[in-house]
Amino acid sequence: MHRVRFRDPAGSVRQGEYSDGEVSFGDESYDAEEVDLLAPCEPTKIVCIGRNYAAHAEERDEEVPDRPLLFLKPPNAVAGHGDTVGLPADRYVEHEAELAVVIGEQCRHVDEADAEDVIAGYTCFDDLSNRDDQDEEQNWVRGKAFDNAAPIGPVLATPDEVPDDARIQLRVDGETRQDSTLDHLIFSIPELIAEITQYMTLESGDVIATGTPEGVGPVEDGNTVEVEIEGIGTLEHDVRQ
Amino acid sequence: MHRVRFRDPAGSVRQGEYSDGEVSFGDESYDAEEVDLLAPCEPTKIVCIGRNYAAHAEERDEEVPDRPLLFLKPPNAVAGHGDTVGLPADRYVEHEAELAVVIGEQCRHVDEADAEDVIAGYTCFDDLSNRDDQDEEQNWVRGKAFDNAAPIGPVLATPDEVPDDARIQLRVDGETRQDSTLDHLIFSIPELIAEITQYMTLESGDVIATGTPEGVGPVEDGNTVEVEIEGIGTLEHDVRQ
Repeated sequence: MHRVRFRDPAGSVRQGEYSDGEVSFGDESYDAEEVDLLAPCEPTKIVCIGRNYAAHAEERDEEVPDRPLLFLKPPNAVAGHGDTVGLPADRYVEHEAELAVVIGEQCRHVDEADAEDVIAGYTCFDDLSNRDDQDEEQNWVRGKAFDNAAPIGPVLATPDEVPDDARIQLRVDGETRQDSTLDHLIFSIPELIAEITQYMTLESGDVIATGTPEGVGPVEDGNTVEVEIEGIGTLEHDVRQ
Repeated sequence: MHRVRFRDPAGSVRQGEYSDGEVSFGDESYDAEEVDLLAPCEPTKIVCIGRNYAAHAEERDEEVPDRPLLFLKPPNAVAGHGDTVGLPADRYVEHEAELAVVIGEQCRHVDEADAEDVIAGYTCFDDLSNRDDQDEEQNWVRGKAFDNAAPIGPVLATPDEVPDDARIQLRVDGETRQDSTLDHLIFSIPELIAEITQYMTLESGDVIATGTPEGVGPVEDGNTVEVEIEGIGTLEHDVRQ
């Protein structure tokens, strides 16, 4: 099942089902074009994973870490499907296509074997990265936590809909820039959930962004970015700078 | 004026006034001992500043940065006055007394000259730091963002109540560990607000933790920590590990 958060024509925020271009809630259904699709969750934090595909670590001239490299994006970073993201002025920004895991219940100290129980679903994510600041900072805050640096959506798919080797692609203005499969993840989703919840409580709606494959590159004023993951769909956002 | 958030005897969360050991809301007033004092705000994010006192940078063998060193603590890090903080197991954790600035309205691109308009008040903060992980991480997530790593409170004081050279002290089990004054801040509060809001929107209730003076040291199972700032009062929390 694909679920969506949306603003209905009366302005109410609803969580409904998405199927074949139609959004439904209760006994109402709408053409997806006529409602405002929102980010599929409202995270209190987004825990992101760096260098979780070997080929991406290599293109950034970095080592593969021996445990998950964690960084944070706060709620101000969230943007939804169809949104136009304003980038920091005069900065070199790159796209990073990722699978995002949305948490379904408050949890702490989750064992790998139980990790699937705390997952609400999967969605698409663009880990927008301001390299000018990131490459100079101890912590990637200016580089990764700027407003709307985390486009996410459009739907929440249940994990069984997404094959283990699902294809993940990113296009800029229709040109393919990233094209890999999820079976290249170095640290698996259960490993990430176990590691993160050793240190912190995850809340319902929190997000783990699982890292990006190779092929990252620039986004600039006027670009349209699409992140497509097999079994989920396509997240689209525009960029202005 | 000193404001507090508290849970009244009926279990409702209220924002009241604190004066002379009494908490009042509407026409009710309570002995502060008989209500549950909560963190004075509910941040969507805490933006922390590293190495903002020269003597602390020196004791950590680090350079003073040429622009504010930023890092993040998410909402799971919040703890209140009187709480018992559970530290990560088998980790060396240090206290860091800090002045926290609580934001009063949603804001972005704030000029230094207008910074005071967006401040709700000041409070005490302990930037608990797990050095074992912090010293190994690219981003200080395990090191700084663990559950309850951000005790804050007890009251929100208006800025006019806190002198520019207010004394800031931290005691562990009654022994003074940190003792400095706020006029040693390298980057001022208006400079911090201007710098952060260049990149991200701050929300009402968000916190800027302005950095710690010299004298950081270990906290361990059973310790009681007090952070006292002139014009605000004393934040107290216990520790278990």
